[in-house]
Amino acid sequence: MSAPAARPAAVVLLSGGMDSAVVLAHLRHEGFDCHALSFDYGQRHRVELERAAEVAKALGAASHRVATIDLRIFGASALTADIAVPKGRDVEHAHDIPVTYVPARNTIFLAHALAMAESLGARDLGIGVNAIDYSGYPDCRPGFVEAFERLANLATRAGVEAAERGERWIRVHTPLLQLTKAGIIRRGRELGVDLSRTVSCYDPAPTGDPCGSCDACQLRERGFREAG
Amino acid sequence: MSAPAARPAAVVLLSGGMDSAVVLAHLRHEGFDCHALSFDYGQRHRVELERAAEVAKALGAASHRVATIDLRIFGASALTADIAVPKGRDVEHAHDIPVTYVPARNTIFLAHALAMAESLGARDLGIGVNAIDYSGYPDCRPGFVEAFERLANLATRAGVEAAERGERWIRVHTPLLQLTKAGIIRRGRELGVDLSRTVSCYDPAPTGDPCGSCDACQLRERGFREAG
Repeated sequence: MSAPAARPAAVVLLSGGMDSAVVLAHLRHEGFDCHALSFDYGQRHRVELERAAEVAKALGAASHRVATIDLRIFGASALTADIAVPKGRDVEHAHDIPVTYVPARNTIFLAHALAMAESLGARDLGIGVNAIDYSGYPDCRPGFVEAFERLANLATRAGVEAAERGERWIRVHTPLLQLTKAGIIRRGRELGVDLSRTVSCYDPAPTGDPCGSCDACQLRERGFREAG
Repeated sequence: MSAPAARPAAVVLLSGGMDSAVVLAHLRHEGFDCHALSFDYGQRHRVELERAAEVAKALGAASHRVATIDLRIFGASALTADIAVPKGRDVEHAHDIPVTYVPARNTIFLAHALAMAESLGARDLGIGVNAIDYSGYPDCRPGFVEAFERLANLATRAGVEAAERGERWIRVHTPLLQLTKAGIIRRGRELGVDLSRTVSCYDPAPTGDPCGSCDACQLRERGFREAG
């Protein structure tokens, strides 16, 4: 028997929520060895990190790291400071960016993932951004992801060397970008993800029980209703 | 007497080296209140952080923060791991990216600066990258800085809101980009920067004394010689 071909490595941002779990399962299914990366940035809902570790294990991640980020960089946000998480917002019709926005969070997360990818020799990043059923954060939009990919290929030794060979180095995978929440749930089920262990709530109880009325709970609830 | 007009805030990346000190002095001179940001990323030459604090104070920074970054993200580099810093390299003719390259470092640094700028209400970032007398790092080139600026304006609430008003939000200042090392030294002298307290060496003694033969020492030595 010949040795199995090596699977390429990918770095996947894993939050403990439903979306990033589905991204991890998707990239595993696509044939990647997935190295999961989570962040401790002083978020109120620390149950996230416990669930991220469970999800990484359950979905066969090759490794899982938790990087700590200095909270003072971010200043005030309802996810990091003592500001109330809005409840019962009309998420279907709201067009503003809510107070749960954390300045430049996905830029910092992807920058870390990029450094980790280059040091591991990975050329693929996965992130669970979604431009359909989302809270309106600017760093979840397709234009943001494209701009990051362009930056990543200019910012790194591996990117420069690939460009010299006429290749693009890094690719940012966003398999959920154009899915509804119900579509994400269906995709997770197809891939065998135990969605019950994921946590989406912006303001869960210490036990992990969701509040039921923040934007994330509303979007999740509607998704499960629509997915049946 | 009327109150003086408020000075706009800027976030300046400050390493303890000569270049970033000149950037801080330049932006102060241009009328900004400068908030300095340094990083503890497990660098070998920790004297950098002491000198950064001295420089911030001497040049009148409005604040100085040191953010810690998880070293494991970066993997191996001669600036963070137990790999020898190259000495006596022919920096004038070398075209490769040396082992002192740290994966995606400036992307991570700028991402943090961006988060801090948005939380402070600043629209200006300063970074001491230089594309003339430099070690060949990809994330010091003009294309990298332009790509980051583009990303930053897409990634943030402040960027989105500015775009709705037809404005560009963030500006990344790179006043040293097209200067030689001698030119940087001359500019520093004009601005009254005490360059003797800055440290450029990649491998200094614990006292801060430079090794004299790494890329950074060679470039600095040549710069002082040319600047007279």
